[in-house]
Amino acid sequence: MRYELYYWPEIQGRGEFVRLALEEAGAAYVDVARKGRGEQKMIKILGSAREKHLPYAPPFLKAGRLIIGQTANILLYLGSRHGLAPRAEAGRLWVNQLQLTIMDFVNEVHDTHHPIASALYYEDQRKEAKRYTQQFWERRPQKYLGYFERVLTASGGPYLLGRRLSYADLSLFQVVEGLRYAFPNKMKALKRKIPRVVAVHDRVAERPRIAAYLASPRRIPFNEMGIFRYYPELDK
Amino acid sequence: MRYELYYWPEIQGRGEFVRLALEEAGAAYVDVARKGRGEQKMIKILGSAREKHLPYAPPFLKAGRLIIGQTANILLYLGSRHGLAPRAEAGRLWVNQLQLTIMDFVNEVHDTHHPIASALYYEDQRKEAKRYTQQFWERRPQKYLGYFERVLTASGGPYLLGRRLSYADLSLFQVVEGLRYAFPNKMKALKRKIPRVVAVHDRVAERPRIAAYLASPRRIPFNEMGIFRYYPELDK
Repeated sequence: MRYELYYWPEIQGRGEFVRLALEEAGAAYVDVARKGRGEQKMIKILGSAREKHLPYAPPFLKAGRLIIGQTANILLYLGSRHGLAPRAEAGRLWVNQLQLTIMDFVNEVHDTHHPIASALYYEDQRKEAKRYTQQFWERRPQKYLGYFERVLTASGGPYLLGRRLSYADLSLFQVVEGLRYAFPNKMKALKRKIPRVVAVHDRVAERPRIAAYLASPRRIPFNEMGIFRYYPELDK
Repeated sequence: MRYELYYWPEIQGRGEFVRLALEEAGAAYVDVARKGRGEQKMIKILGSAREKHLPYAPPFLKAGRLIIGQTANILLYLGSRHGLAPRAEAGRLWVNQLQLTIMDFVNEVHDTHHPIASALYYEDQRKEAKRYTQQFWERRPQKYLGYFERVLTASGGPYLLGRRLSYADLSLFQVVEGLRYAFPNKMKALKRKIPRVVAVHDRVAERPRIAAYLASPRRIPFNEMGIFRYYPELDK
């Protein structure tokens, strides 16, 4: 079966967490909206009156006749199928819990440039973004990444579950990679406080399938339309 | 087995979505932090260096030796055990997807009074809260609740899955109830556009176990410390 991934074609965004899992799994997939009339096809599905399991927003995944929405939910589905999560319930729930915590952090990162409304431009909420980001860097990355540091200490590493890679490790890689793009100065200062998290990042980046993906045109470069944006005035 | 729910004792908050599921299921549970030294016990678990499945934040649930964190994850666990979600994978994923969409909306509702930082008081971000809330009411409840209206139309109702109640219906009830408390004027104006969502709310409220719960001291009243807060200046 060839999966169909539906996501905005010009950004990594939340779709990237799914792409990383598909790539690590070596799964066959089409990134629908990046080809031909794919984006229109995606928008048509979102507007469908008949679709039984209507997604609220991209990303969503078509797996045969199933349509699955919500990033963490797509990963829950893929994880058990492709060895990216334990089969037993307790382990599956634990990976899902880690993933949901990562998604919460990603929401907060997004708000560093859009604290007032996603529908407005960054330029129309710069003042609020500055205040939000200042507050954010006083405690949030420290708290979230510090939490994952503790999880890695308890698991014994090198991955969040111990020896075994899970999709949550791929997502943690993406968060570190994104934060380094968006806040290079701030991340340089935080680095030595989160050695185990940084080690997960480095280890994931070196996995053969991930390394090949990152070097390929399938990996959309970071830019100022996605979740992780580089605005120098926010990284002082 | 008696579940142990851990959540902040003075608010409904995210813990309420779990409480509603436990109550509808008729499950035996203790709301740990609301009794004796329960809150200290909760904080001790969150600070544990040894806990294998360390939660990032409340709510979390102890089920025998399992500790499960993240609201939607706790509900995923409870749903399949107490008949509040289908047993088959496709149905379980669909309810999880609906729940995650509700949680996204809840995050946005929270930000109406805390757009800059959870660590600051409302009074220290009133100006930004006013601007956020104005933007929010231009489109977000319409979009989210309009989505659930479409899901209810496609399912045939009366519940999100059709004839069968799921934990996502209980959460949808809570969102409508909370929005009515926080934004009585705004919700009065929106009401006629979301008749099916309002019908889910009313039907859930009349379920015997939920009605008994809502009338009991176990239900903490809404207040200005939780997610849904009534600030008249934001409801103009």
